[in-house]
Amino acid sequence: MSAMLIDDDRLFPAEASARKVTRALYAHVRNLPLVSPHGHTQAGWFADNGSFPDPATLLVQPDHYIFRMLYSQGVSMDDLEIGQPVVKNPRKVWRIFASHYYLFRGTPTRMWLDYAFQEQFGLHERLSEKTADLYYDTISARLNTPEFLPRALYERFNIEVMATTDSPLDPLENHIAIRNSGWKGRIIPAFRPDSVVDPDFPGFQRLVAKLGEQNNEDAATWTGYLNALAKARARFRALGCTSTDHGHPSAQTADLPAAEAEPLFAKIISGKADAAQKELFRAQMLTEMARMSVEDGLVMQIHPGAVRNHNPLVFKRYGKDMGGDIPRATNYVDALHPLLARFGNEKNLTLILFTLDETTYSRELAPLAGHYPCLRLGPPWWFHDSPEGMMRFREQATETAGFYNTVGFNDDTRAFLSIPARHDMARRIDCAFLGRLVAEHRLDEDEAFEVAHDLAYGLVKKAYRL
Amino acid sequence: MSAMLIDDDRLFPAEASARKVTRALYAHVRNLPLVSPHGHTQAGWFADNGSFPDPATLLVQPDHYIFRMLYSQGVSMDDLEIGQPVVKNPRKVWRIFASHYYLFRGTPTRMWLDYAFQEQFGLHERLSEKTADLYYDTISARLNTPEFLPRALYERFNIEVMATTDSPLDPLENHIAIRNSGWKGRIIPAFRPDSVVDPDFPGFQRLVAKLGEQNNEDAATWTGYLNALAKARARFRALGCTSTDHGHPSAQTADLPAAEAEPLFAKIISGKADAAQKELFRAQMLTEMARMSVEDGLVMQIHPGAVRNHNPLVFKRYGKDMGGDIPRATNYVDALHPLLARFGNEKNLTLILFTLDETTYSRELAPLAGHYPCLRLGPPWWFHDSPEGMMRFREQATETAGFYNTVGFNDDTRAFLSIPARHDMARRIDCAFLGRLVAEHRLDEDEAFEVAHDLAYGLVKKAYRL
Amino acid sequence: MSAMLIDDDRLFPAEASARKVTRALYAHVRNLPLVSPHGHTQAGWFADNGSFPDPATLLVQPDHYIFRMLYSQGVSMDDLEIGQPVVKNPRKVWRIFASHYYLFRGTPTRMWLDYAFQEQFGLHERLSEKTADLYYDTISARLNTPEFLPRALYERFNIEVMATTDSPLDPLENHIAIRNSGWKGRIIPAFRPDSVVDPDFPGFQRLVAKLGEQNNEDAATWTGYLNALAKARARFRALGCTSTDHGHPSAQTADLPAAEAEPLFAKIISGKADAAQKELFRAQMLTEMARMSVEDGLVMQIHPGAVRNHNPLVFKRYGKDMGGDIPRATNYVDALHPLLARFGNEKNLTLILFTLDETTYSRELAPLAGHYPCLRLGPPWWFHDSPEGMMRFREQATETAGFYNTVGFNDDTRAFLSIPARHDMARRIDCAFLGRLVAEHRLDEDEAFEVAHDLAYGLVKKAYRL
Repeated sequence: MSAMLIDDDRLFPAEASARKVTRALYAHVRNLPLVSPHGHTQAGWFADNGSFPDPATLLVQPDHYIFRMLYSQGVSMDDLEIGQPVVKNPRKVWRIFASHYYLFRGTPTRMWLDYAFQEQFGLHERLSEKTADLYYDTISARLNTPEFLPRALYERFNIEVMATTDSPLDPLENHIAIRNSGWKGRIIPAFRPDSVVDPDFPGFQRLVAKLGEQNNEDAATWTGYLNALAKARARFRALGCTSTDHGHPSAQTADLPAAEAEPLFAKIISGKADAAQKELFRAQMLTEMARMSVEDGLVMQIHPGAVRNHNPLVFKRYGKDMGGDIPRATNYVDALHPLLARFGNEKNLTLILFTLDETTYSRELAPLAGHYPCLRLGPPWWFHDSPEGMMRFREQATETAGFYNTVGFNDDTRAFLSIPARHDMARRIDCAFLGRLVAEHRLDEDEAFEVAHDLAYGLVKKAYRL
Repeated sequence: MSAMLIDDDRLFPAEASARKVTRALYAHVRNLPLVSPHGHTQAGWFADNGSFPDPATLLVQPDHYIFRMLYSQGVSMDDLEIGQPVVKNPRKVWRIFASHYYLFRGTPTRMWLDYAFQEQFGLHERLSEKTADLYYDTISARLNTPEFLPRALYERFNIEVMATTDSPLDPLENHIAIRNSGWKGRIIPAFRPDSVVDPDFPGFQRLVAKLGEQNNEDAATWTGYLNALAKARARFRALGCTSTDHGHPSAQTADLPAAEAEPLFAKIISGKADAAQKELFRAQMLTEMARMSVEDGLVMQIHPGAVRNHNPLVFKRYGKDMGGDIPRATNYVDALHPLLARFGNEKNLTLILFTLDETTYSRELAPLAGHYPCLRLGPPWWFHDSPEGMMRFREQATETAGFYNTVGFNDDTRAFLSIPARHDMARRIDCAFLGRLVAEHRLDEDEAFEVAHDLAYGLVKKAYRL
Repeated sequence: MSAMLIDDDRLFPAEASARKVTRALYAHVRNLPLVSPHGHTQAGWFADNGSFPDPATLLVQPDHYIFRMLYSQGVSMDDLEIGQPVVKNPRKVWRIFASHYYLFRGTPTRMWLDYAFQEQFGLHERLSEKTADLYYDTISARLNTPEFLPRALYERFNIEVMATTDSPLDPLENHIAIRNSGWKGRIIPAFRPDSVVDPDFPGFQRLVAKLGEQNNEDAATWTGYLNALAKARARFRALGCTSTDHGHPSAQTADLPAAEAEPLFAKIISGKADAAQKELFRAQMLTEMARMSVEDGLVMQIHPGAVRNHNPLVFKRYGKDMGGDIPRATNYVDALHPLLARFGNEKNLTLILFTLDETTYSRELAPLAGHYPCLRLGPPWWFHDSPEGMMRFREQATETAGFYNTVGFNDDTRAFLSIPARHDMARRIDCAFLGRLVAEHRLDEDEAFEVAHDLAYGLVKKAYRL
């Protein structure tokens, strides 16, 4: 067993000349501030600044990367107390997790956790059934210190700005409270309207009605509905929001004339639309959102292609976002055409594309982003936010889209403690990619330093207008 | 020309630090027994224990990897005597093969053959037109020695268990003979019911009727048909069978209510079903087989996605399995949904998925296997059972599914003499992958030793319940 | 900043043992003549042998790799004078390009340009806003010297033969002029009939009528139309043409009986066909072209899968081939079946397949080419004609198709000055791939020398019958 959980050279190329360059590049960027433009932390943590509870509640229960792997190997989700409002037996849950830690060998989850264990909790012996209690006690003790309060962690993590992800219906009171508190941390909302643009979202009609009420518009009409969305966007912008996000099942867009959009909306709001009409409405709403972005400058993100709740038993018992979401092949070249034909050449629009289908990197996404002025490529997402996944992205997208049509890293996580580890992994892999390019004389070393800085810091600030 | 056909460090990373770890890992696993849970050797070889015929009949005629490449470069299949019951001019066939051996540069076939030539026949000079007769005479001489009888080879190859692939109609007399012979080799059948569940199989109706007769059931009824299949499975289990295998054109599954399944079966058995009904029936039968596996514990394998007999001229003249099978893009996320919704959470079910579509590793298969308790990923199959193919599998599947949702190696071959070479290649590539992870500080060395052992031996025994 | 723009070891593996072998392999092939069987240079350059104009007109305006990247980052195509008959402000265009040169970091365009800047113009300081005028003046001066006339460049580039790409309607007067001039350069036409076989081509009916007139056939009849095409092919062959090329939106083929083909043609030529009929006609024409190739021996190339003119605004303002073409997923296994069922086993047919969908390398293209005698795989095309793209091709195709079902390199460019750089890149990457195989003991070194020579020179001559 190694004396340390993580090595200073982790994720660097083994080959000596590339490793040497990679080390130098990484030294240049490792301490840059973290910019987190897209993620799922909770503003309430920073508004309240209360201490985090026990290790199981903090690290196991909310992390679908962890419990999906345990479940796949026969561990009961009930034993892990997944989906429970409060973890009643956190030490028991922790022990189950610890005794299955070997399952995570070779996964990014393992590397993120080891980083947090060593760097944040000072642990150096590997987590296992044997060390479960040592870990539990050590972490528990630290969580009760002032250094582990959310605001202290935010500052120690050297975060410059962090976006949450929020419904248009959210009063954003925690964001307001943070701004009023005098604390200097920059926590901003992001506008995620899925619940009021996706007719399949549970309670859609009720939520649209609520959107109208909140914004003094008649959301039962197409015009009122659009006005309400525009007003909600304005409210978000006033609290520092710079981006929207759209988690559609496909990347389909549409550009209907008003004479068709209006009756489509009426059908949708009546609750009598069929599946094709619902898909068309979502498609149309992406183009409407792009139009509003041209007007108000909010950067638009699309995260398409997840089949949600693939496992009906897990969905029924534990609800959504419980590990049963599976990617599906995604077509961008046809699906995005209506939106791009309308707004693709707009210089004031920034549209950041994500994918769960890596086959599109070289075939569709890089060619699209290497042409349309509005397009940028988001970093590898979800299952692909990993060392091999990030390397494939650079290898498959760079030659056509270059570095400057990409937007740096997103941690995209609800696991606050993993944020430094995630950014560190991305910086290491980007430096490793650049290090190999330099070692193979495909990029000059002075240029690699500039690019490394841009990938770690410059591009994300520019793309997200932060 | 090198003094040896194969090098001790073949397939290891060239980089020194990774190679050093890889060597150590490989030394740890190279001599482990071979477990062969899925393949196409013939039980009759071991029942009869007769000597193998000449080199052409043994190595060229049955190996579609070889003759498809020769055919692609204009060699006549008639000159190779493909599809003939007996090779009449084996030395002539061998000389054709030898003079085209350069075509296999860079292919796994070349490495498998070189391994066998050197390790089993003591040959050290490269096969070519010039050495064709030396090879022919050397191999011929050895095949007539007791050391080259099937049982002796089985033992020298250090095989612990080997499964054949058998029709439900097969009397399994050779398996019975082996068990009665007192020989200690463990040759077991595997249950492959394609001929009686695929309405497109030539003679389907007749074969189903025969299935009924053999099992004293009225296979003209849905219930009788299912009973007959269950009885056939029981007969296989009694002879050591632990798994089934399903070679469907797609991965489509269905979960019809009995009220729909029964008339569908009636339509199918009437011979009047259309293509969509046939596909639906195959889909339903995968779910029926899963249900039986939950009951009787047989591990289920699905090998989908080959377009069989793509070349009608070759099919007409030489029959099936003659090199004209081509993969097609395969969707798992939607296709498997009906089966997984019904049985995906069953802990007593093990369902091993294979693919000919590598794009599904990271997009569909790893996310599915990293969630559903019943799912495991089979090793790279057919065209992907190769150094680059195996490396891509580990690189693309591990980060989401881990190592423990995979099942080790399948040689999946009718080329008995290639079995040691195939397992050796898999062990070397897995060690090379692990060696790089260690060299890049992504896995601790002590863990890599455990994983290497699991990949070579532990996981396959566990997954296939051997 | 490095003292040189390009390094002697560029694109070689960083690892020492593989690099050593790679260097030796590359030394063996670097000076072999360039064979360019498919590209878009203009015969008129060599017929007239006039000097090239200024740097912007030569290097920026015609190169869609360059201006699509600049456009993607907000540079105006009007400022670049794209689509203008004459560049009026070439120095201004050049300065815009120079100040954005950093965008090309990590792209093949950057490496091609740096090669030309250093090797052809003697420039050693990196192009940037600061060096823009130095570059402009240096290049301009050289372009006015006799050494930079087209024929001198052709000879200095050590080109052995170079094919242009021509419409069946082209009188080929420049090709005739070259042959009559007594110059020894071998410039040959290639037969690209898209304009008269694709009903969606602008002016299709008019062009078909013209085809008939030129060949003294009644092209309003199916027989006359086919005869006219055959005569046009014969005219091309008489001028040294050895190949045809087909740029269809999909790889769909058809093999209709005459009783269906004839009325389909009538519908098409009437201008009243719908989209499906147009696609079916294109599909049928691929099979007709294959039939003619069996007869006249012209090698057939298919370049499918580009969605042309995806960006309607750019198409409307600047026309076609202006950077707005995007790949789409392509199916070969089903699409090619009709053609292959008819002619796939013909030894006199050579059909070279290209793709913009890399997922088909291992899944479809290598299995098809590793079986059908007529098939060969073209080199990585367009967005994939890049270091990573070429390496992926070898890694994904070789194990199933071998080296000998591939056809060497195509530069496929209208950028004449980039031709040596493009061939050099391909040779380096192929040697790097082979160098790794040798270093990993997967191929003997003496064999690697033979293969390197074949990939750089032998295979292309053989495949294209040059």
